[in-house]
Amino acid sequence: MYAEKIPDIIIGRLPIYLRALQRMADNGAQTTSSQELGERVGISAAQIRKDISQFGEFGKQGTGYNIQFLMDKVRAILKVDRIWDVALVGAGDIGHALARYNGFSNRGFQITMVFDNDPSKIGKMAGKFRVEDTGDMVERIRTAGIKVAMLTVPAASAQEVADKLVKAGVKAILNYAPISINVPPDIKVQHTDPLTHLQRMTYYL
Amino acid sequence: MYAEKIPDIIIGRLPIYLRALQRMADNGAQTTSSQELGERVGISAAQIRKDISQFGEFGKQGTGYNIQFLMDKVRAILKVDRIWDVALVGAGDIGHALARYNGFSNRGFQITMVFDNDPSKIGKMAGKFRVEDTGDMVERIRTAGIKVAMLTVPAASAQEVADKLVKAGVKAILNYAPISINVPPDIKVQHTDPLTHLQRMTYYL
Repeated sequence: MYAEKIPDIIIGRLPIYLRALQRMADNGAQTTSSQELGERVGISAAQIRKDISQFGEFGKQGTGYNIQFLMDKVRAILKVDRIWDVALVGAGDIGHALARYNGFSNRGFQITMVFDNDPSKIGKMAGKFRVEDTGDMVERIRTAGIKVAMLTVPAASAQEVADKLVKAGVKAILNYAPISINVPPDIKVQHTDPLTHLQRMTYYL
Repeated sequence: MYAEKIPDIIIGRLPIYLRALQRMADNGAQTTSSQELGERVGISAAQIRKDISQFGEFGKQGTGYNIQFLMDKVRAILKVDRIWDVALVGAGDIGHALARYNGFSNRGFQITMVFDNDPSKIGKMAGKFRVEDTGDMVERIRTAGIKVAMLTVPAASAQEVADKLVKAGVKAILNYAPISINVPPDIKVQHTDPLTHLQRMTYYL
């Protein structure tokens, strides 16, 4: 159906396209164009056409793309046509905010476990989850077969927790701790840190 | 001192280098090498040397980089050798978490105002800030001369709030709303959405 290996840079853009397509669908639209999609996401229509052509033939010149069909394809490529269980480690402010966020499941993910090492947090609720002891984390994650984790611990603990997640079989980590973590090459990591985002913009001001 | 225009891709990496250098400095280190820095941030030593050479001569072959000197240079380039006032719009869970986060000021930023349009939130505290009415936002931000904002409102309000921020004179927006926002070309935007980050990794699992 589509080329075996899609370049990382295109994979990086597909979630943005998917989010915009979902929004169009929610608003009742059935078709879109590379022009319209491009304006929504701030990417040129030519780039969008090129990206989409990488994984097959969609739409015909002049008739545009069927939104639902394109969404289904992008979801299948990104493997979010299923629901991934997610372990959340760190029940601080950001951890609580993520535990309470209800936007995960319609985009392919659900938090199923929340961990912390702070005795004052263990056993308390974070959203609808009872916070579990990180001491049990490796065993719990391994037994449940969880492959995706979000790390919302302080910088000083991040590497140690990441090592445990890898040991538990986690293959993808979204890291909110303000520090780079080192993992084996087969583990995917995405970092999100408000300060690095802010610092990327001030150069231009 | 350094080339007039540094490529975007290098500017994107500098905050990561700065964060790692800061951590080394906090741990008492005085010098580092491209090898060590590269291992910390998961980027090749050759790439680090190339990036750093873009903006001048630092360190000598074999003696490594003076960490404080390099930090000072990177901070000056990124213009975070000062403190930028930041307006936070949206006093929900993520807004509260950011308002309470104490990692801003030592990296060049400080939240000075928090806004929401929800009468049940206006006047309440978010961290140490009293939540103000978005109705006063444009005037308040313009008068204070604030150039940087963080957007933590629902997707449905994000574009409208972004338009107001631009009107108020804001030039850089960190957008937490799960939607792309359209702004004039002279305004910088960074998006952060846990779901797009997660969706960028599952393809590889």
